[in-house]
Amino acid sequence: MDTNHEPRKEDILESAKRIQPYIHHTPVLTSRAIDEIAGAKIFFKCENLQKAGAFKSRGALNAVFSINQLDINQGVATHSSGNHAAALARAAQLKNIPAYIVMPENSSKVKVAAVKTYGGQITFCIPTLEAREEKLNEVLNETNAFEIHPYNNYAVITGQATAALELIEDISDLDTIIAPVGGGGLLSGTALSAHYFSPSIKVIAAEPSGADDAYQSFYQKKFIPSVNPDTIADGLRTSLGSLTFPIIQRLVSDILTVNDQDTIEAMKLVWERMKIIIEPSSAVALAIVLKHKQRFDGQRIGIIISGGNVDLMHLPWK
Amino acid sequence: MDTNHEPRKEDILESAKRIQPYIHHTPVLTSRAIDEIAGAKIFFKCENLQKAGAFKSRGALNAVFSINQLDINQGVATHSSGNHAAALARAAQLKNIPAYIVMPENSSKVKVAAVKTYGGQITFCIPTLEAREEKLNEVLNETNAFEIHPYNNYAVITGQATAALELIEDISDLDTIIAPVGGGGLLSGTALSAHYFSPSIKVIAAEPSGADDAYQSFYQKKFIPSVNPDTIADGLRTSLGSLTFPIIQRLVSDILTVNDQDTIEAMKLVWERMKIIIEPSSAVALAIVLKHKQRFDGQRIGIIISGGNVDLMHLPWK
Repeated sequence: MDTNHEPRKEDILESAKRIQPYIHHTPVLTSRAIDEIAGAKIFFKCENLQKAGAFKSRGALNAVFSINQLDINQGVATHSSGNHAAALARAAQLKNIPAYIVMPENSSKVKVAAVKTYGGQITFCIPTLEAREEKLNEVLNETNAFEIHPYNNYAVITGQATAALELIEDISDLDTIIAPVGGGGLLSGTALSAHYFSPSIKVIAAEPSGADDAYQSFYQKKFIPSVNPDTIADGLRTSLGSLTFPIIQRLVSDILTVNDQDTIEAMKLVWERMKIIIEPSSAVALAIVLKHKQRFDGQRIGIIISGGNVDLMHLPWK
Repeated sequence: MDTNHEPRKEDILESAKRIQPYIHHTPVLTSRAIDEIAGAKIFFKCENLQKAGAFKSRGALNAVFSINQLDINQGVATHSSGNHAAALARAAQLKNIPAYIVMPENSSKVKVAAVKTYGGQITFCIPTLEAREEKLNEVLNETNAFEIHPYNNYAVITGQATAALELIEDISDLDTIIAPVGGGGLLSGTALSAHYFSPSIKVIAAEPSGADDAYQSFYQKKFIPSVNPDTIADGLRTSLGSLTFPIIQRLVSDILTVNDQDTIEAMKLVWERMKIIIEPSSAVALAIVLKHKQRFDGQRIGIIISGGNVDLMHLPWK
């Protein structure tokens, strides 16, 4: 695919076919108990049950498998402390090329182990954005690897869009889809899929109030970076990208925020009632519904459960 | 159905149709990472994602919906500290009859709340088997309710058999199915379904070594009760029943035991790698496979994940 333009309808459909052999078509789960609490009918698209435990597998695979082979035959690289790192390592392993991952030295052991499982070659750095970018540039120069950014990359956005495409295909007549927003890869992909495949669906973003740069950017209509984010939702601390922000501005209906306490309660509710493990970044979307019950009263709501990578030794309700 | 004889093939097929509107056809999930660790291909039948969080919904529904209406129009009753309590309350609510549940006063808050959610009427008693049976007899006398035993009841066994029936229908060429054994309702139902629908499958029981009454009974060929069971697998502390033991003796190939430490490690492995919440009683089956790798090497193994009702405030690895 041509990765220099915003994803078109056919790009998303091609991406879905391209990555299909390597991903799970994840189930959509429901809970009568949670529907009663919410006063709405909620369809949870379970990307926590995706390969490598997150929707990030989709974007990383689509990038590695669609970018010109000549560009990536020396390998791919990224800096990431989170789910993109493992997803990119896995995609590269499937393509039989190296993956160079720059990770901050305070990354969780679980995430480091996941990258190693998929054969990723890790370079540690001190945990600042400057150090991460500097170290990544060193790695890129040394290896001639090709950078795959976690969200500011059209091939990645196109891959993430396939989660909402599956949800729309599986569940008819949704009124709203809610996706969490960090860098905006999942959110912009979700908005594109709704726009192309079921334009009556409203796409709403869920963001922690302690990292509300997307909310600020959206309503001030200019890019506001994420500075000193303070939230348990570790996947949502990043700033929007130059490619994701314009799509979000054009196609997303609203961005709503919640505090971490509401997020933790929503997370525990899903664990208890649905018996699935979701990470805090995923619980933000349900917390939004429970906080704005009147707004969503009686609706059919799709929620993208972004991932399930949690350190089980440090749960937030302890 | 006539509930006075051992379940026949057609009883199980009828039961599957009868309860189908009220249960989930639960997904069968797999994990490449766990398969690599085990050296086998494991298919997890996820009854933790069943209504009320456990396979017990099947047996309770089949009993309430197949027993003569005249026998149960004053309601149903049981004593249970666990998943059968919530499952029976739910089945009675769907049938619009009362459910009287005798629970020991030290039952977990989560389980008490679940029974109340489904409109069950709880009577508390002191936590001994004698007190539970005495209190249940009082309740039965006062209410004229009909007792539905958690496992020593052919209609219940028939309902539990439908989990393995679905697994056999969904996954071809299984070599082995492993189910945990407490009172033997799930195990005897599983063994009957394998016998009728895919007789080449070996059915193996998984039991905690701290509550190995089924193992002892099976190999001594006589009923040995569970005395002072000591295991984290709270669903597996009960003794076999007079109806379940003969089926198990005839149709189960082997009973294997593991200690709680192995069970806790298997439980954590499933939480981490599969992002689903399973209770200790369910992890016993995977622990068996990991302990006996040579025996199961290269096999296609079905594991019945019995339930996901866990107190999230008290996890065993803390």
